[in-house]
Amino acid sequence: MLTKTLPFNKQQIEEIIKKYPTPFHIYDEKAIKDNARRLIKAFSWSSGFKEYFAVKANPNPYIVKLLSSMGFGADCSSLPELIIAEKAGISGDNIILTSNNTPAEEFIYAKKLGAILNLDDITHIDYVDKHAGLPEIISFRYNPGPLKGGNAIIGIPEEAKYGLTRDQLFEAYKTVKDRGVKRFGLHAMIASNELNADYFVDTAEILLELISEINKSLHIDFEFVNLGGGFGIPYRPGDKSLDLEYISSKIKEVYDKTVLSCGLKLVKIFMESGRLITGPYGYLVTKAIHKKEIYKDYIGVDSCMADLMRPALYGAYHHITILGKENEKPVKKYDITGSLCENNDKFAIDRMLPKIDIGDILVIHDTGAHGYAMGFNYNGKLKSAELLLKEDGTVKQIRRAETIDDYLATIDFSGL
Amino acid sequence: MLTKTLPFNKQQIEEIIKKYPTPFHIYDEKAIKDNARRLIKAFSWSSGFKEYFAVKANPNPYIVKLLSSMGFGADCSSLPELIIAEKAGISGDNIILTSNNTPAEEFIYAKKLGAILNLDDITHIDYVDKHAGLPEIISFRYNPGPLKGGNAIIGIPEEAKYGLTRDQLFEAYKTVKDRGVKRFGLHAMIASNELNADYFVDTAEILLELISEINKSLHIDFEFVNLGGGFGIPYRPGDKSLDLEYISSKIKEVYDKTVLSCGLKLVKIFMESGRLITGPYGYLVTKAIHKKEIYKDYIGVDSCMADLMRPALYGAYHHITILGKENEKPVKKYDITGSLCENNDKFAIDRMLPKIDIGDILVIHDTGAHGYAMGFNYNGKLKSAELLLKEDGTVKQIRRAETIDDYLATIDFSGL
Repeated sequence: MLTKTLPFNKQQIEEIIKKYPTPFHIYDEKAIKDNARRLIKAFSWSSGFKEYFAVKANPNPYIVKLLSSMGFGADCSSLPELIIAEKAGISGDNIILTSNNTPAEEFIYAKKLGAILNLDDITHIDYVDKHAGLPEIISFRYNPGPLKGGNAIIGIPEEAKYGLTRDQLFEAYKTVKDRGVKRFGLHAMIASNELNADYFVDTAEILLELISEINKSLHIDFEFVNLGGGFGIPYRPGDKSLDLEYISSKIKEVYDKTVLSCGLKLVKIFMESGRLITGPYGYLVTKAIHKKEIYKDYIGVDSCMADLMRPALYGAYHHITILGKENEKPVKKYDITGSLCENNDKFAIDRMLPKIDIGDILVIHDTGAHGYAMGFNYNGKLKSAELLLKEDGTVKQIRRAETIDDYLATIDFSGL
Repeated sequence: MLTKTLPFNKQQIEEIIKKYPTPFHIYDEKAIKDNARRLIKAFSWSSGFKEYFAVKANPNPYIVKLLSSMGFGADCSSLPELIIAEKAGISGDNIILTSNNTPAEEFIYAKKLGAILNLDDITHIDYVDKHAGLPEIISFRYNPGPLKGGNAIIGIPEEAKYGLTRDQLFEAYKTVKDRGVKRFGLHAMIASNELNADYFVDTAEILLELISEINKSLHIDFEFVNLGGGFGIPYRPGDKSLDLEYISSKIKEVYDKTVLSCGLKLVKIFMESGRLITGPYGYLVTKAIHKKEIYKDYIGVDSCMADLMRPALYGAYHHITILGKENEKPVKKYDITGSLCENNDKFAIDRMLPKIDIGDILVIHDTGAHGYAMGFNYNGKLKSAELLLKEDGTVKQIRRAETIDDYLATIDFSGL
């Protein structure tokens, strides 16, 4: 029987629930730190290697600060995310703004923070110049278009709204060089939740070969290539984690073949992963409150898609453990449902699980990235709290649950 | 050239933007009222006919109050929606709670308001009895299962988590009758965004025949049947509106054939539509801020899927008008994009439109239902304001835009 492990047991969660009622996301600090160390170690050959955590995956400043303490930067895609990074104590080129269709105020704020601007479009050169002034360092996002196949979630690159074409890249670097930009980076992100390791090696090869060519043509040195994110995680018990050591060693081969053998200056490797960093180390804890038997058997829980959209949105698999029944056989087929008036508000469909009783605590795995972050308030549903299970075993609430007052905050009732 | 009309022109919107910057949803009060009158008139043969507006479609208390002033009630699916109805001045059996997997506090609050409880499951009889006490009037939601085909959005009924089976219904009404419930209703909702008029006639027939049978078997009189919602609207310029007069006349035939000829007491017809009521009378107004030419041509606007999820979520079509270019030919193919780091954050894909310049105002049609309501804050995106274009031509802000402080309200930064 394939299964997944938990960093807590039923008794611990029952203690936590006394103080923090369900539903909540709980993040495993120790596992996040161990994972961060593993990533840094895998790329220890690469001087200046840096992971910029994709704040969009888990925009909690406590998580961002925790990752910062491990040496990570922040990849931000909006003004609020820049502010989260700032509040977490991150600044300067430890922040990258990777956005698209970017409004002027975001460039202005990012430049104020000293963040690296990763421009998504050639027209943004003039736009940044006009609104914020060009900074000393600039990166561009590359869209290889038909030169590179895509993957299921991110789609095919030539249909993607992101980045510059190859021809535009040459023009863009020449333009910013002529306008006095001194330091350069190159970025691409061509996958999402990809578990094929060679995908990332290919991306590195594309970028490293491209900077050699741009270097030859424009005589500019690149300070970094940013491989983007898109690193998948094993949602299903049978899935294999990406072999970071393999990816790193293969990228080193590419690096030696391109950067070193072409005599380029040191190029740092950057990544801006979210899911890989926190995804597997978050858990949505919810209680069974309702049992329904009609044409199928349903268990209703006190959470809903407001807390985790991925199953409803993508039909994504999230493993579910019934606390205290970890070793019981899956004997019944259930749909596990939230309470939205949307029939896709189901955490699992036709899932074989141990027999569930009302009051049982269900743990939905792998909610550490794109979990809380994607929640909405449709049907007036309120989003859950977020807790941090600290290394010493204590629990800290790092976000309170939404209240009805939060939900109604933008309404001025006095005019009714 | 198929097109759609607007209740305002470029000059008016430019005036409004001076006070309320883009993006915003704007709702057309006059059209909403005219439409409400049309619905009421169509069912004027039916004594006690009532539309309970599905608050989830547009959970703005000003809209709910406006509809209440037209004689509509409120269909609520959660505690916050009950509170919105209450704040809009609605109470008693002008509120129906149609929810599923319902927590006790919602039943308690609904009962306190005197709302009609529309129970989704047979186990909810005991649950309500235990937590709130059974009220005088109860309705049950019917799920016909394989007896009735579904439609594209709502799926096939036997896969739907909603309602009671036929056998359960007979048992449920008997149980509540034995426990002293005096007044009864029956509900079904088997479609979503359906444009086939006969679908609703079929639903009425199923419900009206069923109450005759239950009446014969259990000797209870039904006070109402609730046909639910699911009435579609013409999103595409070529689509035809549902013919409400046709639907009403056909339902009357069914009514005469069942209720009248069986000698049943008067049965009121209820509906709980959302989309039909406000959908076509809302517009998302946004400005072109970015023009990008790579493998395709993109126009970036200052709104994103946070304000309107339907295109990204369902690939739904929403018509777009470029203000001041209403009569220009569609000469260019664009993707109209928001700024989320999600490639599906596009309001239109490969849409032929007049040539768009930066600064142009785009109006996205049919955002009056399931528009603002479904928005999320992914990527730190903030949701827009909502305005009401009043009958007298003035504009009232009925919801302010979200701020970064709203977005961060659940974080206690002092612990960082």
